[in-house]
Amino acid sequence: MLNINADRLLSDLYELRQIGAYKTGVHRPTLSEDDMRARRWLVDKLEAVGHVAHIDGIATVISRAPGDGPKLLAGSHIESQNHAGWLDGALGIVYALEAARAVAEDADLKARGAGVDVIAFSDEEGHFGGFFGSKSFVGDLSEDTIDAACDRTHGTPLREMLATAGLAGVPRVTLERDRYRAFLEAHIEQGDSLESDGLSIGVVTSIVAIWQYRVVCEGAQNHAGTTRMATRKDAGAALRRICRRIEETFPDIAAERSVWTVGRMTLEPGGPSIIPGHAEMLFQFRDADPDVLARLHAALATIVTEEDSAGPCSARLEVISQTTPAVMVREVQSAFVTAADAFAPTKHIMMPSGAGHDAQVIAPHLPTGMLFVPSIGGISHHWSENTSDDDIVVGGRVFAGAAGALLSQPR
Amino acid sequence: MLNINADRLLSDLYELRQIGAYKTGVHRPTLSEDDMRARRWLVDKLEAVGHVAHIDGIATVISRAPGDGPKLLAGSHIESQNHAGWLDGALGIVYALEAARAVAEDADLKARGAGVDVIAFSDEEGHFGGFFGSKSFVGDLSEDTIDAACDRTHGTPLREMLATAGLAGVPRVTLERDRYRAFLEAHIEQGDSLESDGLSIGVVTSIVAIWQYRVVCEGAQNHAGTTRMATRKDAGAALRRICRRIEETFPDIAAERSVWTVGRMTLEPGGPSIIPGHAEMLFQFRDADPDVLARLHAALATIVTEEDSAGPCSARLEVISQTTPAVMVREVQSAFVTAADAFAPTKHIMMPSGAGHDAQVIAPHLPTGMLFVPSIGGISHHWSENTSDDDIVVGGRVFAGAAGALLSQPR
Repeated sequence: MLNINADRLLSDLYELRQIGAYKTGVHRPTLSEDDMRARRWLVDKLEAVGHVAHIDGIATVISRAPGDGPKLLAGSHIESQNHAGWLDGALGIVYALEAARAVAEDADLKARGAGVDVIAFSDEEGHFGGFFGSKSFVGDLSEDTIDAACDRTHGTPLREMLATAGLAGVPRVTLERDRYRAFLEAHIEQGDSLESDGLSIGVVTSIVAIWQYRVVCEGAQNHAGTTRMATRKDAGAALRRICRRIEETFPDIAAERSVWTVGRMTLEPGGPSIIPGHAEMLFQFRDADPDVLARLHAALATIVTEEDSAGPCSARLEVISQTTPAVMVREVQSAFVTAADAFAPTKHIMMPSGAGHDAQVIAPHLPTGMLFVPSIGGISHHWSENTSDDDIVVGGRVFAGAAGALLSQPR
Repeated sequence: MLNINADRLLSDLYELRQIGAYKTGVHRPTLSEDDMRARRWLVDKLEAVGHVAHIDGIATVISRAPGDGPKLLAGSHIESQNHAGWLDGALGIVYALEAARAVAEDADLKARGAGVDVIAFSDEEGHFGGFFGSKSFVGDLSEDTIDAACDRTHGTPLREMLATAGLAGVPRVTLERDRYRAFLEAHIEQGDSLESDGLSIGVVTSIVAIWQYRVVCEGAQNHAGTTRMATRKDAGAALRRICRRIEETFPDIAAERSVWTVGRMTLEPGGPSIIPGHAEMLFQFRDADPDVLARLHAALATIVTEEDSAGPCSARLEVISQTTPAVMVREVQSAFVTAADAFAPTKHIMMPSGAGHDAQVIAPHLPTGMLFVPSIGGISHHWSENTSDDDIVVGGRVFAGAAGALLSQPR
């Protein structure tokens, strides 16, 4: 089975970690100077492998491996959240780079003209909108959307940032579907499932769907001193009753890995002596199973309808978004499992991804698979995010091993 | 019993309503042009009764009745909340004006040198801080507080507004305790107790205390997709558990007229895909009975402590303010009841005030009483606030009748 140079893998990751270093993490927001340094660093690394590499018009880095044999596409993102972890995105980039090198150095694969093209999608982290690189790559990002996008932290227009980075007028690269057997992405888990079960590898079965809602209650704003309890129409109280019903109902009907979250609650007008006349919350749940999603949706709709009927406040449910679960193809899952049996026997598991990744954007267009390694303490989107060197190396071996196997299969 | 001129009372109220008219209500924020017009209107009316009247350095209007006999102080506030009702404050001003006139026109009281000084306290509604006029009047408002105060709507400093109104450097009037037998204030109920019981007069026994709290829960901010339900430390969920315990506990231990309100809830950081790591709410309860207040406080403290102990989030209770109930003196209550027996037999009731009034600031310094008339639909702090002409007139008769009786008593 194809193997990697573990020291080189770790050395590259530590090099990349120095670019935009912040405490033990990194600060590389999309199109910042440090982000562009990281992209150029990657181009140099890929050219050293013998690839043709460049940064496209949306700042995605893409390389083409030499040879006219079978090809895979592999990668992730290279920018970070603000003041966040050193591995979120970067791990998948360096795994792809190392897999490309391992394939290039394998005599048999080289002879067959096989290769791993490496891609670092721009702005997966959503500084300007989210998944702009992968969406652009599959033809799902309009010029109008780019025109309208501004950095969420400092408000600078995306066009201005692209021009500053020297990317104004540079064409955007799109997917050549026939070139690739599959797309592979590795990532830190961003949760604690693997760590808490003592495992080293998660083979992703699907990327969960996220169903997001706004729940709105309307009552009667009134004086908090003179309005008797019995006659109140407290919209905040109505919203909390809905939360309570959700908390009572969902554990019984959810699947083992379903998650649901009240991310925001707002009572209006919000004065200490005013009974809220309007209350709303942002609520979401996630699961990979369409049946579970439908069941949770039906329960939520019933709860809101019943609160509305019972009164004294009105209640309504607004759907913000309902994505489709992205299923990872069985062929890639099997390749990961076979490689994990070799490099991490009894230490791997099949699992859904609770977070979104570029892989979900690519999945409808190309056979796609994802690999997870543990996050220490489940920490994510924070500079203290980390993974042990041992787990990093094992993940890199499994990733490259699966890539080699997929490239070796007859077609 | 002393009586009033009902047409004159209504005519004055309708005149005052024209100043800053907004829909069927008024918009007269403290020290606005319309507010100052209203204050000058009142000065003119009082001078026409034979009083010496002026606007003091905090914009409180005060008059002195002639004669060296017994005196009462009567009044309320004349500014309004933004775009609010025409009677909130104004009713008490015109009742005091009409009582002053009725006393001035009564041969016997006039012969005894009796009189009703009228006062319109500035900024009861808190455009700059709340109760500034009455606090200044009892010597409880420092120059530093005035220096620091700004209008809550447009941020203009109070000093600048006072200067614009021509009040810079004008002395502030303070209470002459020995001059008065009592302070009397009338007000709309701002609730629906009187209306729903078919009553016309509420004789206030006390002004409830307001105990205000901030309840804070701290958990762990984390990814809403990758953090399993079992391992979450959701600060918002912890805060909702506290609300639920309050809602379960308080009805059993509260008194009949106790009220409690969650006015604001904040989950941080408030993103749809982030488990809140911090959550807090503003919570208050009101009652006139110190024992009930203590019982509710103890229950709240227990609930928060138990949530903190149970985990997984920490919870703490911060006291924002705990006022003392202001007891109305029996002598004034009796005078109101006697007058109500004459003008509204079987249509009056003793009741606490759930809202705060200038009377609570004056009560520690002078024997104080308050009278309520019904609010249609219990509406308050809204331009649609209203009271029937019949109820307005009955209230005016009871108010003046009680004033006449208090002035006639031998001392």
